[in-house]
Amino acid sequence: MTDTPFDLVVRNALVATAADTFPADIGIRGGRIVQLGEGLGAGAKEIDAAGRVVTPGGVDAHCHLDQPMEPPVRMADGFDSGTRSAACGGTTTVIPFAAQAKGQSLRAAVLDYHSRSEGRAHVDYAFHLIVSDPTPTVLKEELPSLIAEGYTSFKIYMTYDDLKLDDGQVLDVLDIAREHGAMAMIHAENADCIEWLTKRLEAAGRTAPRYHAHARPMLVEREATHRAIALSQLVDVPILIVHVSGREAVEQIRWARGHGLQVYAETCPQYLFLTAEDLGIDDSYHGAKCVCSPPPRDKANQEVIWDGLADGLFTVFSSDHAPFKFDSPEGKKPEGKEVPFRHIPNGIPGIETRMPLLYSEGVLGGRISLNKFVELTATNPAKAYGLHPRKGTIAVGADADLVIWQEGERTIRNADLHHDVDYTPYEGQRVKAWPAMTLSRGDVIWDGTNFTSKTGRGKFLRCGVPTLQPRRRHG
Amino acid sequence: MTDTPFDLVVRNALVATAADTFPADIGIRGGRIVQLGEGLGAGAKEIDAAGRVVTPGGVDAHCHLDQPMEPPVRMADGFDSGTRSAACGGTTTVIPFAAQAKGQSLRAAVLDYHSRSEGRAHVDYAFHLIVSDPTPTVLKEELPSLIAEGYTSFKIYMTYDDLKLDDGQVLDVLDIAREHGAMAMIHAENADCIEWLTKRLEAAGRTAPRYHAHARPMLVEREATHRAIALSQLVDVPILIVHVSGREAVEQIRWARGHGLQVYAETCPQYLFLTAEDLGIDDSYHGAKCVCSPPPRDKANQEVIWDGLADGLFTVFSSDHAPFKFDSPEGKKPEGKEVPFRHIPNGIPGIETRMPLLYSEGVLGGRISLNKFVELTATNPAKAYGLHPRKGTIAVGADADLVIWQEGERTIRNADLHHDVDYTPYEGQRVKAWPAMTLSRGDVIWDGTNFTSKTGRGKFLRCGVPTLQPRRRHG
Amino acid sequence: MTDTPFDLVVRNALVATAADTFPADIGIRGGRIVQLGEGLGAGAKEIDAAGRVVTPGGVDAHCHLDQPMEPPVRMADGFDSGTRSAACGGTTTVIPFAAQAKGQSLRAAVLDYHSRSEGRAHVDYAFHLIVSDPTPTVLKEELPSLIAEGYTSFKIYMTYDDLKLDDGQVLDVLDIAREHGAMAMIHAENADCIEWLTKRLEAAGRTAPRYHAHARPMLVEREATHRAIALSQLVDVPILIVHVSGREAVEQIRWARGHGLQVYAETCPQYLFLTAEDLGIDDSYHGAKCVCSPPPRDKANQEVIWDGLADGLFTVFSSDHAPFKFDSPEGKKPEGKEVPFRHIPNGIPGIETRMPLLYSEGVLGGRISLNKFVELTATNPAKAYGLHPRKGTIAVGADADLVIWQEGERTIRNADLHHDVDYTPYEGQRVKAWPAMTLSRGDVIWDGTNFTSKTGRGKFLRCGVPTLQPRRRHG
Amino acid sequence: MTDTPFDLVVRNALVATAADTFPADIGIRGGRIVQLGEGLGAGAKEIDAAGRVVTPGGVDAHCHLDQPMEPPVRMADGFDSGTRSAACGGTTTVIPFAAQAKGQSLRAAVLDYHSRSEGRAHVDYAFHLIVSDPTPTVLKEELPSLIAEGYTSFKIYMTYDDLKLDDGQVLDVLDIAREHGAMAMIHAENADCIEWLTKRLEAAGRTAPRYHAHARPMLVEREATHRAIALSQLVDVPILIVHVSGREAVEQIRWARGHGLQVYAETCPQYLFLTAEDLGIDDSYHGAKCVCSPPPRDKANQEVIWDGLADGLFTVFSSDHAPFKFDSPEGKKPEGKEVPFRHIPNGIPGIETRMPLLYSEGVLGGRISLNKFVELTATNPAKAYGLHPRKGTIAVGADADLVIWQEGERTIRNADLHHDVDYTPYEGQRVKAWPAMTLSRGDVIWDGTNFTSKTGRGKFLRCGVPTLQPRRRHG
Repeated sequence: MTDTPFDLVVRNALVATAADTFPADIGIRGGRIVQLGEGLGAGAKEIDAAGRVVTPGGVDAHCHLDQPMEPPVRMADGFDSGTRSAACGGTTTVIPFAAQAKGQSLRAAVLDYHSRSEGRAHVDYAFHLIVSDPTPTVLKEELPSLIAEGYTSFKIYMTYDDLKLDDGQVLDVLDIAREHGAMAMIHAENADCIEWLTKRLEAAGRTAPRYHAHARPMLVEREATHRAIALSQLVDVPILIVHVSGREAVEQIRWARGHGLQVYAETCPQYLFLTAEDLGIDDSYHGAKCVCSPPPRDKANQEVIWDGLADGLFTVFSSDHAPFKFDSPEGKKPEGKEVPFRHIPNGIPGIETRMPLLYSEGVLGGRISLNKFVELTATNPAKAYGLHPRKGTIAVGADADLVIWQEGERTIRNADLHHDVDYTPYEGQRVKAWPAMTLSRGDVIWDGTNFTSKTGRGKFLRCGVPTLQPRRRHG
Repeated sequence: MTDTPFDLVVRNALVATAADTFPADIGIRGGRIVQLGEGLGAGAKEIDAAGRVVTPGGVDAHCHLDQPMEPPVRMADGFDSGTRSAACGGTTTVIPFAAQAKGQSLRAAVLDYHSRSEGRAHVDYAFHLIVSDPTPTVLKEELPSLIAEGYTSFKIYMTYDDLKLDDGQVLDVLDIAREHGAMAMIHAENADCIEWLTKRLEAAGRTAPRYHAHARPMLVEREATHRAIALSQLVDVPILIVHVSGREAVEQIRWARGHGLQVYAETCPQYLFLTAEDLGIDDSYHGAKCVCSPPPRDKANQEVIWDGLADGLFTVFSSDHAPFKFDSPEGKKPEGKEVPFRHIPNGIPGIETRMPLLYSEGVLGGRISLNKFVELTATNPAKAYGLHPRKGTIAVGADADLVIWQEGERTIRNADLHHDVDYTPYEGQRVKAWPAMTLSRGDVIWDGTNFTSKTGRGKFLRCGVPTLQPRRRHG
Repeated sequence: MTDTPFDLVVRNALVATAADTFPADIGIRGGRIVQLGEGLGAGAKEIDAAGRVVTPGGVDAHCHLDQPMEPPVRMADGFDSGTRSAACGGTTTVIPFAAQAKGQSLRAAVLDYHSRSEGRAHVDYAFHLIVSDPTPTVLKEELPSLIAEGYTSFKIYMTYDDLKLDDGQVLDVLDIAREHGAMAMIHAENADCIEWLTKRLEAAGRTAPRYHAHARPMLVEREATHRAIALSQLVDVPILIVHVSGREAVEQIRWARGHGLQVYAETCPQYLFLTAEDLGIDDSYHGAKCVCSPPPRDKANQEVIWDGLADGLFTVFSSDHAPFKFDSPEGKKPEGKEVPFRHIPNGIPGIETRMPLLYSEGVLGGRISLNKFVELTATNPAKAYGLHPRKGTIAVGADADLVIWQEGERTIRNADLHHDVDYTPYEGQRVKAWPAMTLSRGDVIWDGTNFTSKTGRGKFLRCGVPTLQPRRRHG
Repeated sequence: MTDTPFDLVVRNALVATAADTFPADIGIRGGRIVQLGEGLGAGAKEIDAAGRVVTPGGVDAHCHLDQPMEPPVRMADGFDSGTRSAACGGTTTVIPFAAQAKGQSLRAAVLDYHSRSEGRAHVDYAFHLIVSDPTPTVLKEELPSLIAEGYTSFKIYMTYDDLKLDDGQVLDVLDIAREHGAMAMIHAENADCIEWLTKRLEAAGRTAPRYHAHARPMLVEREATHRAIALSQLVDVPILIVHVSGREAVEQIRWARGHGLQVYAETCPQYLFLTAEDLGIDDSYHGAKCVCSPPPRDKANQEVIWDGLADGLFTVFSSDHAPFKFDSPEGKKPEGKEVPFRHIPNGIPGIETRMPLLYSEGVLGGRISLNKFVELTATNPAKAYGLHPRKGTIAVGADADLVIWQEGERTIRNADLHHDVDYTPYEGQRVKAWPAMTLSRGDVIWDGTNFTSKTGRGKFLRCGVPTLQPRRRHG
């Protein structure tokens, strides 16, 4: 059988997995990695990785693409530009959100989201569900059947009026996750506190973008994190706290771990590279570019997040890409106006910069090992959401989703990025490495200069059960 | 090049690394893994793993073999029987200790230990150093040159009269570890507390083996753990706390991690499978079989250790194999007598049972993932002590050290084990899996029934620098 | 002036305050203590305390008397029998609750409560407010004026459908407390969790009284405690968590204190002397007698509470007297039926046993000092609610509210108590001391055998600002 | 009996105890308080306190007077000047240390110390013992008999070569404390760490006074605090950690309390009013004035200490007065030279400023209540060391040791102080109150301007058992 030629061989790679780093050729056939070895046979095509680091293509498990919004606000990136930007930043799998509107059937939301993605993606994609209206039908019928069909994770919001669940609803949804082995992601911020603070700030005329951070101090996140942990403990089911921003939430999660609870956590580049000052040190509206929730904190909290990445507190590193143009009535200036922070669409773009930023400052900056980088950006997200080992690793049988890295100083410029957003919060940030090539199922879709994919080549992925760890059940 | 035949192909393996699990053939040449893939070419020899789990051979990073003892006490296992027992239990690399006696040159201790190991081992081995007398010569000359020569880890004792260092000496040794990038292992128990309690127990006539546990309550370990952490924090160097036994030490280590300190931890089978009751519920001398330090605790503490394994608190899972015969004047009955617990040689055998016990109760019992098992028993110890990626993984270029697992109920009987100790503390324990085959550098040395190695085939390994994580330096 | 005779002299008392214990005569005139000294002049009346311990009369800062309930349920004790029972147990000041019904004006609730208390009390009393409907009028008008008139504390419920506030309402009410210097008491249990668990238990047919404890595990209390702390931290105002039951809530409060927050805590006899087993080890309905919220926990948690009393974690020790008859359609058997636990009126009687139980097991049992007893039962509650130094101490100028203690074994029997409840949860409990005499403003109202008060002699007290500690304000 | 005239009546006092604040006259006879009341009869002498706050005279439970030192170093204050300074600052009881030299009999140390104090003191005094050489004779004979004679507290040093005990010796001494009901004070710093750091600093030429703080970072104190707690836990005896300086030690003590351990703590003015910068921001030798151990920390740690005072973490507030002249060969410049920090006599003066500083910034600054001030400065130290209720309170039967306070801005100047030290570390500090009058057993010894005592009027006090709380014994 060895005489069958490979479709492609990536030669002389310094292959990195979540466990190991080793030099090897990578033999690819049918879009899959079929051999790893020294001196592999010839491929129909060959790429010489010339001793470069090759990691699994990234799995961005937290990004928003073409998610229905209240008009006039509209996400700038759909599956076309969003996955293009992802690919050029080394990400080959995305898991955006099929969001149920209140009153809507969850299945209808899924069907709608398929209609938005079908034929448009450049890399493979799966869906998380957002459950905003857990009616008995949703809980007893829709969720179980959707989980069985490959939608095995859902996100629960503890804030945002149109999305948030009360504690009883959270328990109901977590109970379904437990019964059917799904993974529950939780956005943990206390809605009432935010509203209370926002009103006070508004009453005091403090509506500039920077006050967004004042309306969401760390204790608001800490409280909801503690509550989410307690609710998951009651139901006895793992949860994953998304976009953890700093010390106070981290301490709650450490507490939970120390008590044997399966509480996973995600963080994002904005908590490593931005601070609240990026929302403005005066009332300038440019701060709106960095309005996201939770807001970035300060330098000391960035260190806490770095420690958590190195230490294993964090399981997943995602972008939380939420693409709103800055200078647009569809984006950060609804109807063309500079609005009070309450009305600024929440979120920042970052799907393309996620991997290079962490590689540069984390791996090359000596903060985390290369294996930890792979674990956080690819392997663990694939495991957490039931896509491993097809996605998230370089192993025999896995999809040939690869990033070939090139080291070298470079400055992030929005002009060089591939999303449809008119800014990046990281404009001017220096990085030390960038993807020289991105392969998706063996296809070179980014060669370091040109995006070479065909729209619609990305396929929908049905997710299986999470495989991070066996589920522990307590008495 | 593909036409070069393999020396050996392990076919149809379910390969497990610390990151991934995937079906593949393993192509071996010159004792090394050179290919992993689907449908590899023929090998001179072939083994059909028939869909069985294949893990990296274990790295037992904490075991004692033929270590010089005060006569008449003598270790029952040297490098021959010790590595034989290791191999039959799936361990293909051992790192025992070259122990400096007070007054002795450290290099002399190393030379002596080579004379004890040379030509006797069945699997590869490296040495940790035990520094018991950190004279200026040791610190300034011997340690730096030994580290450069591949002895990159050393153990520091905070207890045992003949080994223990005072806090100032610990700082001196840690400082060398920091300067030269070595890894410091610490045995953390407060010597004075143990002595004080022992005298009181003796004065009360409480000298039966079970009082060994009374003389070393958890706070004795907790205190020394806190102190070791503080000392490493002062020097700003990572440490690894060995054989952590229960909640109180675990809480100190969690505290350290939560403060960004690189404090690693090891635990052992005795803290998962034994309790203090195994030292005796009455004054029976049979309890001497389980006298080790720290002593096993109770069921609740076993759960704490399991949680720490699953959660990532523990980096390494070792045996702390310390082979003393029970019914022997050279062992647990010095000069043939049932002695007060103070004089019972400390330690229990376990080099052969380490991997099957954790595989059975951990992996098959649903407590940890298969990848976590590999990480704890092989990959992380290899990384922690600078042997990775040559040892500790299944990857292209790695030594072909493999274990092929066979599931099936089985009862541990000392009669079936291969050490030279006359008992096992796990006599009668049920396990659910055992190595069906162990390969060392491509040689089958255990076939599930027969030990097929040649004495002396095991080679000495020079260790490199630890690669668990980059070292963080603080201010 | 010294020639004016005293109305009463209590001779040879061993006077205990929250700080000191000393032998003295107590000279009383006009219902007030006017002198403390050796060999005081004659009194119109004299009582020889014969070296007995004399403490301040107790201040029971958490008790429910004649509080309006949903018919047919009715509190068995109003101000007459409730304060009679209090007095016979050594309590000379009570602070029950004027409870606002949803939709009701808070002032109307206060007026109604005056109509229930006026002319009925045997000892002095103040009112806490229960705010269940914080409308703008309540917040901006009623609360400020009521606080100014001497209603300076209010209770916030995080559970019970008819009383609970959402987090935003809690913030609003706390903000009033901050602005006007009032003290906020919080009942911390997560309502949604309780409802969710209750429904599940009901669906499983688990409706016997003992399942009340299953519906309110400690994490339900812990979560709400953490949340209450976070809300008070946001507003920057002290709070007092009432009826803390065990370890998990205690740990949250310790955490808050360790972060410099003014979080006070109260506990009650049921958390020292009862366990969940008192709610039943089978489905017997007798467990209904001990249904209260939070439920009693277990022996280990009792120890945690004792430690917190000794250590200073707890500021106040109250009864949470909630008087419902057991064998009555107005009480624990609504409409005469054994109802599912959800419908059992919550609460247990205990106004008379509070002081003897703590004196016996706490002081005479060697767990707390006599001064600590006085602090917890009298001085601190008086300070917390603005009644000190008129109430809660033995000092010149204070009201002559005194308890003369008699040591001696005695068994608690409901037949011997003075409330109008048909049971006591402490039936058969041995105590080591009991009030030999209780004085209220110099009047002997309990002589150890007979209750000698006149209905209506108790006066309403206007409360001032809390004086436990200065309020700290943060940034 | 009331017609017996008082020796002295202090009229119209606003009396403050650790529990209460109330207006009263204070009737004094035979040096004792015999009555407290309204309108007391006439006294042979009368003082009109005119509505001023009157507190108990302070008990300074940690001060060093005429303690034998290695020549040429000598303490500037003996019992004469030291108690003079104390009295002028409102302190009426001092407990300095009878220090055993290694090799010396403990009783000899006590006798020697009596010879140094006899006939020299202005206020009453007791002795703590310093046990530096716990021989069997000391442990089995001297300590028990000395405890029985009224020396019921002793100090254990974990640092300083001439004083420190090893852990085994600490256990031995604590065991005596347990058996005989004595109170053990512990100076918690890790000696080896300090020595190790000091040598490194010296090797780097960093010997200026400010490097004293570098040689004793907080973790050095934290480690020893944790160790002291563990040792006391092993023996099951209360301890009191002296001069706690900041967050890290505080967190250990909070941990201990949260685990039910009786660990008391003391802090001192230097940790509230000084920072490490007072040891110098350059190499100026003036920093020697503030060299004490542990060193002052920073502003953030001052807040931690304030929180601990308000919260009840701290039981005692002492001066740790250690009087060495600055510009003297007997003091901070041994043999007249500016010496490396290692050789600078440790300690700062503060016996006179302790009470005014805490009263000003604590009580008048709104950080602690007046009652808490009394508790910390007088009542608790008296209880902790068995002098209560004779000392430390204003109560019938107590010694008439009183401070009448006068509010008003004032600047601390060494010229105005009464010690024999040539500087105060608080030079220029503004205070808001100062003792207008100090009475010792009814004698006015400081009238706000003049010191009016007679040398030798102060009496030696035999201490009883500590009465802070009953001792809890565990398992």
